[in-house]
Amino acid sequence: MTTVNEGTNTSASTGAELTNEEIFAAHEGGKLDIELSARLDTSRDLSIAYTPGVAQVSRAIASDAELADRYTWTQQLVAVVSDGTAVLGLGDIGPRASLPVMEGKSALFRKFAGLNSIPLVLDTNDIDQTVQTLVNLRPSFGAVNLEDVAAPRCFELEQRLVEALDCPVMHDDQHGTAVVTLAALRNACRQTGRDLSEQRVVISGAGAAGVACARILHAAGVTDIVIGDSRGVLHEGREGLTPIKQELVEYTNPRGVTGAVDDALHGADMFLGLSTVQVPEEHLARMAPEAIVFALSNPDPEVHPEVAARYASVVATGRSDFPNQINNVLAFPGIFRGALQAGAREITDGMKVAAAEAIAAVAADDLEAEYIVPSALDPRVAPEVTEAVAKAARREGVVR
Amino acid sequence: MTTVNEGTNTSASTGAELTNEEIFAAHEGGKLDIELSARLDTSRDLSIAYTPGVAQVSRAIASDAELADRYTWTQQLVAVVSDGTAVLGLGDIGPRASLPVMEGKSALFRKFAGLNSIPLVLDTNDIDQTVQTLVNLRPSFGAVNLEDVAAPRCFELEQRLVEALDCPVMHDDQHGTAVVTLAALRNACRQTGRDLSEQRVVISGAGAAGVACARILHAAGVTDIVIGDSRGVLHEGREGLTPIKQELVEYTNPRGVTGAVDDALHGADMFLGLSTVQVPEEHLARMAPEAIVFALSNPDPEVHPEVAARYASVVATGRSDFPNQINNVLAFPGIFRGALQAGAREITDGMKVAAAEAIAAVAADDLEAEYIVPSALDPRVAPEVTEAVAKAARREGVVR
Repeated sequence: MTTVNEGTNTSASTGAELTNEEIFAAHEGGKLDIELSARLDTSRDLSIAYTPGVAQVSRAIASDAELADRYTWTQQLVAVVSDGTAVLGLGDIGPRASLPVMEGKSALFRKFAGLNSIPLVLDTNDIDQTVQTLVNLRPSFGAVNLEDVAAPRCFELEQRLVEALDCPVMHDDQHGTAVVTLAALRNACRQTGRDLSEQRVVISGAGAAGVACARILHAAGVTDIVIGDSRGVLHEGREGLTPIKQELVEYTNPRGVTGAVDDALHGADMFLGLSTVQVPEEHLARMAPEAIVFALSNPDPEVHPEVAARYASVVATGRSDFPNQINNVLAFPGIFRGALQAGAREITDGMKVAAAEAIAAVAADDLEAEYIVPSALDPRVAPEVTEAVAKAARREGVVR
Repeated sequence: MTTVNEGTNTSASTGAELTNEEIFAAHEGGKLDIELSARLDTSRDLSIAYTPGVAQVSRAIASDAELADRYTWTQQLVAVVSDGTAVLGLGDIGPRASLPVMEGKSALFRKFAGLNSIPLVLDTNDIDQTVQTLVNLRPSFGAVNLEDVAAPRCFELEQRLVEALDCPVMHDDQHGTAVVTLAALRNACRQTGRDLSEQRVVISGAGAAGVACARILHAAGVTDIVIGDSRGVLHEGREGLTPIKQELVEYTNPRGVTGAVDDALHGADMFLGLSTVQVPEEHLARMAPEAIVFALSNPDPEVHPEVAARYASVVATGRSDFPNQINNVLAFPGIFRGALQAGAREITDGMKVAAAEAIAAVAADDLEAEYIVPSALDPRVAPEVTEAVAKAARREGVVR
């Protein structure tokens, strides 16, 4: 335990500061257990669940593979897959060290969507290897939640998996964040009487979350998006863009802005912080009146919400100790449950937008500047998202 | 459901015949569930089990990889791995159809050894692919139970996995069967006042179980083993032997027997049936007096136990509806638990023999011709096997 930095305790949103002691105690032996959903107490139980009875079920599936969805656990099972290359704010700490996060994710699937979920962490950063591993294991699960894979590899990996697997695949760091952000922006617009599609949006950070947010906002009808990274705004004239950034340039930055991201804030209606880069107060001050500021970097927001509130009418962060927490847990449990329930072969943009609308709708009746998204623990969210996503899957014709 | 052969109902050892209705009902939705072993009810719980608290645990493991054994579920987690090529008596029915069996196996790990276990079924028969898949996933589990892989591929696959993975790996169809068979033979010898090492043993079947039984009997000091397949007894002069059968020839058949397996029975003390080939009664009649007959083929023993009893003083089968059931469930839960508990890097012959001794010891006090092994449901077995295997692992110096 000498390896733990005793000086980095973190505070929870409720009550006293978390101590290392209670954190490590809660992780002892891991956070998941396999339990039986069939009885196994008598010799007769054994004959039903195992030999000889189980042979009947195996024979039935051998004749009709679709029956595996009904008589095995796979159609309710999400594999949480990571190579541990971009874990929380910790970076490339490897698969073993990423496991507590993946177990936590699996626990959230269980808690919020009643889904089974197993963490599968990979001791390889090679895209071909990862794809082949999951293709080989395909009959073992019903869906893949890709997690904490570094950009830009995450984009190609997700795309390759979507093509190779006939089941729902989603990189949550991209799309979970994008879905909840869209939900929150919709409600921020409702709250301030604006039309989302007419807003000038600036995104700081062109990693997994930044790229996905640009995409979903574009899909939701926003036309004036400016996105930038540490080298400045992405624009047509910029050299050396990665393929994914090149793609972004094609549908963002219609006014041909160049220069630093901070400069792009002048006159902007919305700021989405999805990097760790701090935004100086004087730049926020030059945003349009009644701006909307989402400073989502964790644990240190791009601007402290109290500072942001001097210039913005709605402020959100990624933290549970401030109002308006943009937390992926509002999205991924219901998205996967809805997709699996509908028998979807993939998770489309339409299903993601439907999830965002459902999340926004839960908070809509009680909307306030400090309540634009439901609480992460609100039990109404996952069922609503599930229903909306399943419906969208059927509407889009991607179900089996 | 029209694919199910309604005529193949099977009978359980206790009570009425099993019906398809109850078998399929018990398998609806699968037989496993993931549950939380950490609390996740409040915002504070969420901050401990997930962000930001979990970062402390990830950081600790990043600094000291060994801590993953303590703060994740992997050191208590067995992957049950199959490609579905030799499932029960059904043969090569593929990975999807094998899943109910693998779920059953995982359920048994939970029930009898308190271990977590996940079924991983592979959509490939290629040894390189399977090895690479499990190497890639190595940080995700603590041990591998290989299951229902066809011979002879199972021998090479197991060997390759043992070499590639620094954790316990065991093909249960080989070694689980061998361990319980050795336990039963020990007690059969005790019961009839014989010395196991001096017996003439004939094994019918040179597949996964037959080969492993020959090996463990050899390791336990039996010198006169004759093993054969459908082409007859394995002997030095036989051409076209596979590598694994060539290896067998080196330490079996000291009297240079040739011809059919049935002929080798003349004068033999013990018969182990591990094929589906029926043994004619007249051959059994020529075995040594007070013979021991294990007819382990399922569901149809090589000879009906009532017929065998005319010539043998001890009879065993693989079935739960006759006395002396040779059931792997007596072995694998405790073997894996003991190996994991000791931090073993592998499962050695010494650990397997120790497991057999422990199983035999549980039945030793109440020994009868019809009680040479404990019941599959006897709760005393797994803890005894666990302790014996962990002790043997430490003695053999294979622990981390």
